[in-house]
Amino acid sequence: MELKDYAGTLLESLRERTPLVHCIVNTVVQQFAANVLLAAGASPAMIDHEADAADFAGIADGLLINFGTPTSHQYLSADAAIDTFNQAGKPWVLDPVGFGISAHRTSRIVRALNSGPAVVRGNASEVIGLAQQSGSARGTDSTHSVDDALGAAASLAQTGIVAAVSGESDAIVFADDSGTHTVTISGGSPYMPSVIGTGCSLGALTAAYAAAAAHTPQTQDLSQQARTGMAAATAHLHFTSAAQSAHKRANGPGTFAAHFLDGLYAARPEDLARIQTTWTTGGTA
Amino acid sequence: MELKDYAGTLLESLRERTPLVHCIVNTVVQQFAANVLLAAGASPAMIDHEADAADFAGIADGLLINFGTPTSHQYLSADAAIDTFNQAGKPWVLDPVGFGISAHRTSRIVRALNSGPAVVRGNASEVIGLAQQSGSARGTDSTHSVDDALGAAASLAQTGIVAAVSGESDAIVFADDSGTHTVTISGGSPYMPSVIGTGCSLGALTAAYAAAAAHTPQTQDLSQQARTGMAAATAHLHFTSAAQSAHKRANGPGTFAAHFLDGLYAARPEDLARIQTTWTTGGTA
Amino acid sequence: MELKDYAGTLLESLRERTPLVHCIVNTVVQQFAANVLLAAGASPAMIDHEADAADFAGIADGLLINFGTPTSHQYLSADAAIDTFNQAGKPWVLDPVGFGISAHRTSRIVRALNSGPAVVRGNASEVIGLAQQSGSARGTDSTHSVDDALGAAASLAQTGIVAAVSGESDAIVFADDSGTHTVTISGGSPYMPSVIGTGCSLGALTAAYAAAAAHTPQTQDLSQQARTGMAAATAHLHFTSAAQSAHKRANGPGTFAAHFLDGLYAARPEDLARIQTTWTTGGTA
Repeated sequence: MELKDYAGTLLESLRERTPLVHCIVNTVVQQFAANVLLAAGASPAMIDHEADAADFAGIADGLLINFGTPTSHQYLSADAAIDTFNQAGKPWVLDPVGFGISAHRTSRIVRALNSGPAVVRGNASEVIGLAQQSGSARGTDSTHSVDDALGAAASLAQTGIVAAVSGESDAIVFADDSGTHTVTISGGSPYMPSVIGTGCSLGALTAAYAAAAAHTPQTQDLSQQARTGMAAATAHLHFTSAAQSAHKRANGPGTFAAHFLDGLYAARPEDLARIQTTWTTGGTA
Repeated sequence: MELKDYAGTLLESLRERTPLVHCIVNTVVQQFAANVLLAAGASPAMIDHEADAADFAGIADGLLINFGTPTSHQYLSADAAIDTFNQAGKPWVLDPVGFGISAHRTSRIVRALNSGPAVVRGNASEVIGLAQQSGSARGTDSTHSVDDALGAAASLAQTGIVAAVSGESDAIVFADDSGTHTVTISGGSPYMPSVIGTGCSLGALTAAYAAAAAHTPQTQDLSQQARTGMAAATAHLHFTSAAQSAHKRANGPGTFAAHFLDGLYAARPEDLARIQTTWTTGGTA
Repeated sequence: MELKDYAGTLLESLRERTPLVHCIVNTVVQQFAANVLLAAGASPAMIDHEADAADFAGIADGLLINFGTPTSHQYLSADAAIDTFNQAGKPWVLDPVGFGISAHRTSRIVRALNSGPAVVRGNASEVIGLAQQSGSARGTDSTHSVDDALGAAASLAQTGIVAAVSGESDAIVFADDSGTHTVTISGGSPYMPSVIGTGCSLGALTAAYAAAAAHTPQTQDLSQQARTGMAAATAHLHFTSAAQSAHKRANGPGTFAAHFLDGLYAARPEDLARIQTTWTTGGTA
């Protein structure tokens, strides 16, 4: 099977399984991320009180950790949910949003990184900072290109994590016995950076696909890294397909956001197969 | 007067009175619920700090309690706002979202139930769980049909609460000296479950109509339960009318959400009167 | 230069500089305010944990303080961010939303006012209450007209603050050695009050323009009050232009909100120049 075959299979699996995705995510994007999950075919739940989080993580299929607007409740919830996922061997996604903004936030993101996420998804600056575990004060906008971050992504991949770097083109990097693999996906919409939460909700959709892939028969012959890599790539293909479709109908970022959700809802396997991708494999891990 | 006459009267009363609705509601849906209230004709305020809540509840007309993403601030705010509403004899709505997710949340929802809401609005699984006061871990999706929940709704109704169960068709159940009444409303849009916050914001609109009904002359000859039942039914009719109108204009859940708000804004009494309903009355309470 | 020349210059400066705006703002409108900033040409960050706020304020260009749904985290964050802005001499905006709702909230808003905002932006009732520093319990809707608030706005202006009063027409009042200046802007859309967050996000955009104006060469010959006043007026012109454009395309408040964001994105200097304004100057400060 090729990437486009895995993507089509995983899209159908997602809609059949409607994985329940536990999102500990910033309040700015909760509504949009929930609508993205629903439109794509998953089921969202933004459970971020420490008294609920461990119990809920036990029934959730996927988990996203994103400390965009953290509260003490969310930090405590993340610790509890991560423990539950790790004990059950379920994959989860870390979005290092705002890495480097402050020493406190950086220390909590590093703590999550060291707890073993299956995927890290962020912009180039965040992925570079995280791989180097060095935070310098900056905003949430990336000041690096995706190409700049390929080395950092590969170094995360060497530790068993799938690294997904978002930008004008996206790169998904993972490593297994067959080498270090880089999937690049191009062709979104220039309106995307003008809609809040597109990156964060891509992390949520990646968590949904990682959960679906863990139980999809056609991906069981893959290494765990490759299976999760295919899941992350499919989330990005689903996004790109919806963005292309929405771009044709939109007159600006406001109408784009509505059409983008329609596009996620309508996307079919053949739409994902039409997105331009490359897959290169380098030296073994 | 029939239901359709009450509904038209209450719609006009809502827009004339623009009831101020105090919403203690999850952060995922705060924006959508506020836009629903504004589009329908009410005035929202999401006040959930314990230092504000009791004071604000004193000037609010309606109150919604929904612990979707509870914080300690929200739990304390709810206790204070409920006390203020109860002392003033003003009706309030409980949405038992996530009932059964965790022991802590379940205990707080039961505490609210035992504080005397005028209306409980939830999906079938939540209403069944609440009526039995037995929480088993599950997600926020209903695993029961509305018909499954009619018995549970009737048992809540026997305690003086109006029970509104949301699903493909909705059921509003209330009981007074003339018997146990079940109003069913059918014909929404299949996009509704793919838009986050439609259930939660229906609870908010129910709180707005309950507040309006309490001061609408044409409903003063009804029992308190019937008056609140007519209010809850009208909120559901207003939603269904907007959903039908939006469905015709939408290409998916994203554009549906925008057209749905337009539909709430545009709805007239004759639009509510066209929605398909049934009203059955069983044994006296 | 006239107002329309300053406005066009500042619009271009905003898009060139994409000022990073630190928003401590209620959770109801975080998504919409972020989308407004992005569509207009600025960069939003809703950082409201006390462990991040001071550090982030150091790299942010603009700051909005809005205690719509305050938490203890937000109160502590505001104190820290305001200190950082004041020490750096960067202008910041206070939105006194909900002034008078409760003694606790009122005391925190007054504390912020006494910390030296460059701009206060609110509805008429909030501006009147703030100028008198007398809070009486009421909702978030204004019960006064913009004209009612011109005296209160002038009294704030005498203390060096630019006062922006929102309503059917908007008024921006500031005072410097050349007198007390009142800019009025008229012609929005009747759908605006039916979309949550239009006022709050106007505060955010005002913070973005104040940041841009501080570094725009063409405004350096103005007094600090006049420069900030031009920034506030430009934010209001940008909003009015987008509202007029959106009104033509909308069928109600839901579609209006999407077209409004498109309108912010598309607005050009000549669009701002077409909005109807008056500028009157009274006695010197």
